[in-house]
Amino acid sequence: MKLAVDGMGGDNAPQAIVEGVLIALDDFPNLEIDLYGDEQKMAPYLKQHSRLNIIHCTEVVEADDDPARAVRRKKDSSMTRMLDAVAEGKADACLSAGNTGALMAGGLFKVGRIEGVSRPALATTLPTMNGDGFLMLDLGANADAKPENLLQYAIMGDIYVKQVRGTASPRVGLLNIGTEDKKGNELTKSAFTLLKDADFNFEGNVESRELLNGVADVVVTDGFTGNMTLKTLEGTAGAIFKMLKEALFATTKTKIAAALVKNDLKQLKDKMDYTEYGGAALFGLKAPVIKAHGSSNPRAIYSAIRQASIMVEHKVCETITEKIEQMPKSQ
Amino acid sequence: MKLAVDGMGGDNAPQAIVEGVLIALDDFPNLEIDLYGDEQKMAPYLKQHSRLNIIHCTEVVEADDDPARAVRRKKDSSMTRMLDAVAEGKADACLSAGNTGALMAGGLFKVGRIEGVSRPALATTLPTMNGDGFLMLDLGANADAKPENLLQYAIMGDIYVKQVRGTASPRVGLLNIGTEDKKGNELTKSAFTLLKDADFNFEGNVESRELLNGVADVVVTDGFTGNMTLKTLEGTAGAIFKMLKEALFATTKTKIAAALVKNDLKQLKDKMDYTEYGGAALFGLKAPVIKAHGSSNPRAIYSAIRQASIMVEHKVCETITEKIEQMPKSQ
Repeated sequence: MKLAVDGMGGDNAPQAIVEGVLIALDDFPNLEIDLYGDEQKMAPYLKQHSRLNIIHCTEVVEADDDPARAVRRKKDSSMTRMLDAVAEGKADACLSAGNTGALMAGGLFKVGRIEGVSRPALATTLPTMNGDGFLMLDLGANADAKPENLLQYAIMGDIYVKQVRGTASPRVGLLNIGTEDKKGNELTKSAFTLLKDADFNFEGNVESRELLNGVADVVVTDGFTGNMTLKTLEGTAGAIFKMLKEALFATTKTKIAAALVKNDLKQLKDKMDYTEYGGAALFGLKAPVIKAHGSSNPRAIYSAIRQASIMVEHKVCETITEKIEQMPKSQ
Repeated sequence: MKLAVDGMGGDNAPQAIVEGVLIALDDFPNLEIDLYGDEQKMAPYLKQHSRLNIIHCTEVVEADDDPARAVRRKKDSSMTRMLDAVAEGKADACLSAGNTGALMAGGLFKVGRIEGVSRPALATTLPTMNGDGFLMLDLGANADAKPENLLQYAIMGDIYVKQVRGTASPRVGLLNIGTEDKKGNELTKSAFTLLKDADFNFEGNVESRELLNGVADVVVTDGFTGNMTLKTLEGTAGAIFKMLKEALFATTKTKIAAALVKNDLKQLKDKMDYTEYGGAALFGLKAPVIKAHGSSNPRAIYSAIRQASIMVEHKVCETITEKIEQMPKSQ
């Protein structure tokens, strides 16, 4: 199996990317990696490895580049060439921690949609209090969605959780503002009727306040709501941990307490760290395109590589293709 | 000034309601309260008070009553009669901790919309880390909103924060999935162009992860997104505090730490307690209709009564009426 990796994307590139790649190569003996990027900049962190190929690129897609144009214009960027490699069948999957919008646009444009998938979705595994986590999609690939899109998101999420996370019959939930069947806006009301007739384990509506309690294994929503919910989760957790830190370092007394619970709080914070589960994946494309978090450390890059390789190994995209083909054509 | 209060609504009714009413009467010498409810059930908590009138009702709107029908069918319920009192001009404002949907439906049906307001909105003040708080609306009065609705929400929110919270030029933000002007879904993109031409201090798009940092004084969104964001905030904060508690009571060592920081953590939790700012208000009705949190304690009821009385005193509904009248008629 061969993965194409963008060595130049993300806040800690190229160091974190190169280091993550090297750990993954050591851990997964069947893995070969083509690493795209500026050879000179990556050199200080590189080690010779028989399953690692360096492919020099002269350009970089920057965080503030226009997503729609970046990949088309920067033809020799590490991100573009990594996507080209997948499009041309030279790699089975690809991974970048760079500009999310550019990766989504480029993935759609270069790798292409699975026939019958009207909108790809961005999906990631988020933490729950019991440590199991749940897959949520769409996190912002498409701000506006139709009920049929949500049905396809559910089908793709169900396949992913079955094949990558090994859950026999994932509970699929529709993110909504109430648990009753008839709750919600026009979109969720229509989507509910589609989802309840589908052949996965539909749990009905789930509320955002219950997400961390693990109410479902797959949570489906439109990209606007998904992005909003993810950012609210992140923002709230971040704000509370910040206030907690301030409270713990306020006085001598609290500092003593802080020293006593330091490791326990670190564990608690780690529990909320979703980079352990891998990156975000663009579902609905012909091959796995993985977006690692912009602030990824080597460990997060490693997790994202593991995720990409499991998606390839378990033929997630192939299964999605088959399943979507079997769907009645509605339009 | 006279307020009508539903003595029977909420998890802690009638005790918490009666006690909150009594504290408020002691604190606000200009306030007269008509308390609606089951006289016998309220009796154990009541005290004689010259500005308190008890109005016996034989029915109660329950938490699981159908919102659309409850107020119409239960004509002698404390909630219905409280709303009737406002509709008939016997009270200046009303307050309930009961069934939110029933109160919204009843408020619309009995008290009625201000002419020109196409959709009322549910608004509440949420906490920020610096303690200032911000007003957010709509929290779920209307799941689906048009751009024009969001403009009216912004106008109403701006008036409220000026007149009730005393902020000279409130910063109005549009809740969105990015801060750039052209970000978002169809609704927020259209609303952005309406809001930027309005005559309040429009700060542009604000992201949900920044809400607790106090990025705006008024945050406007559709009811689906508002409700979702509120529940995500509550759910995440609740989950973290729960995990924190578990971590602090895990071992003898952490228990010692817990004892040392107990008060500091209590303060932190109190900071996140938005009932201190009052209840949620239905904006766009002819008189203030306040929804106190279902789990309100006497202190929260007191805050909600204070909020209702300030809204009456500062003529919030009258100012909204004038402002909406001056708007160009778009439909």
